[in-house]
Amino acid sequence: MPVLRFYKLYLSPNRKYVKLLKNLLGFVPGNLMLYRLAFRHKSVAQVVKKGVKNSNERLEFLGDAVLGSVVAEILFKMYPYEDEGFLTELRSKIVSRINLNQLGRKLGFEQLVEFDNRVINTSRQSSLLGDAFEALIGAVYLDKGYNFTKEFLATRIIKPHVDIHKLENTETNFKSKLIEWCQRHSKDITFELTSNQQGESSKLFTVQASIDGEIFGSGKEFNKKTAEKLAAEKACEALGI
Amino acid sequence: MPVLRFYKLYLSPNRKYVKLLKNLLGFVPGNLMLYRLAFRHKSVAQVVKKGVKNSNERLEFLGDAVLGSVVAEILFKMYPYEDEGFLTELRSKIVSRINLNQLGRKLGFEQLVEFDNRVINTSRQSSLLGDAFEALIGAVYLDKGYNFTKEFLATRIIKPHVDIHKLENTETNFKSKLIEWCQRHSKDITFELTSNQQGESSKLFTVQASIDGEIFGSGKEFNKKTAEKLAAEKACEALGI
Repeated sequence: MPVLRFYKLYLSPNRKYVKLLKNLLGFVPGNLMLYRLAFRHKSVAQVVKKGVKNSNERLEFLGDAVLGSVVAEILFKMYPYEDEGFLTELRSKIVSRINLNQLGRKLGFEQLVEFDNRVINTSRQSSLLGDAFEALIGAVYLDKGYNFTKEFLATRIIKPHVDIHKLENTETNFKSKLIEWCQRHSKDITFELTSNQQGESSKLFTVQASIDGEIFGSGKEFNKKTAEKLAAEKACEALGI
Repeated sequence: MPVLRFYKLYLSPNRKYVKLLKNLLGFVPGNLMLYRLAFRHKSVAQVVKKGVKNSNERLEFLGDAVLGSVVAEILFKMYPYEDEGFLTELRSKIVSRINLNQLGRKLGFEQLVEFDNRVINTSRQSSLLGDAFEALIGAVYLDKGYNFTKEFLATRIIKPHVDIHKLENTETNFKSKLIEWCQRHSKDITFELTSNQQGESSKLFTVQASIDGEIFGSGKEFNKKTAEKLAAEKACEALGI
């Protein structure tokens, strides 16, 4: 429909937004409402009915599922002689929060995500990008269908931005990743054991990862090392590294 | 292609298998190899290359993802005013191992699943049905595409066999479910605390659920009750109840 396309891009009152999306995504969106919703964090959502807010969370649920399915197929076909354990692990690296946050940043979602910056502080904003990325996949799916979404993910997202073969060999070590990042940015990182809860049948360790005195992640486990790892992973996620 | 369809159903050397599948699934399959693979448990698989066996495990990985995506969309559209927490929980009930095992049984997969019964004892066979169900979804997807699979799942599987509204209100209590089942089948059930590992920083409980003296599930947690629950869940899964 070249006429409709022309109207959307050059004449409609939303032409600026349409152009912005087209530049970022590589296609002209159909139902704009879906895309606006995908970029709306719950901190700026309004209640629409029965306590339901028009935020991107429902789209995120849908997009996460569609993304999982598309990535599963890509890997299934890419590695015909690897078993399901290999495929499962590799997929979880590709769709990890950290990877999705980075993708959101690479795609320039910072210009699009709406949120209340009194609620979400700067360093935590990157996790919004990954959430918006998943919600966007949900929006593309509802707008254009499965095959379009698969093609979009394969050619516009994964091929240019995700090095699958590199991820294959990556062991994710969040603690060293976080320490490196802090050194590079001249920040102090501390892992602090904040509680050591001793119940009837458990001994839980809570570790907080703080950067320049601000807590960025905390982990709870009945093993101090694992609690540290969890805290580091959450801090990495919050920082989008 | 009515000629090809006629050939497949009445003339081809595989016509018996094609008819069986048509009766169970409601459509004439395209690539038969995929369906045979979907019903082949690893206990009867042969090594095809580099240690890879031609079992249904890879198809199960793919089918699990496609199923998750289709169910996500069905729920997304069925409950426009529920939040993502509700949707996530309901989906996990629908795609639970127990539910999938039951689906496999209802669909008559017992006649189709190939496995080595020297390796898999009778009471554990039901979990093979759920695995085969997921693998079948993977096969249908590769054979017929996403939209066909979605339609197939919605009209042939979910509508007649899954009561979503009932699941919505179900709290899954595996322990009572297991005890009930044992009473109905006049079997003895015991939950036995087998170890109480006390490490430097943990106190792990291992509980085994045994039926008539045979272990059907075990759970490990640092809380005895949860360990029992886990053991019961695994036993329910093994028994396909």
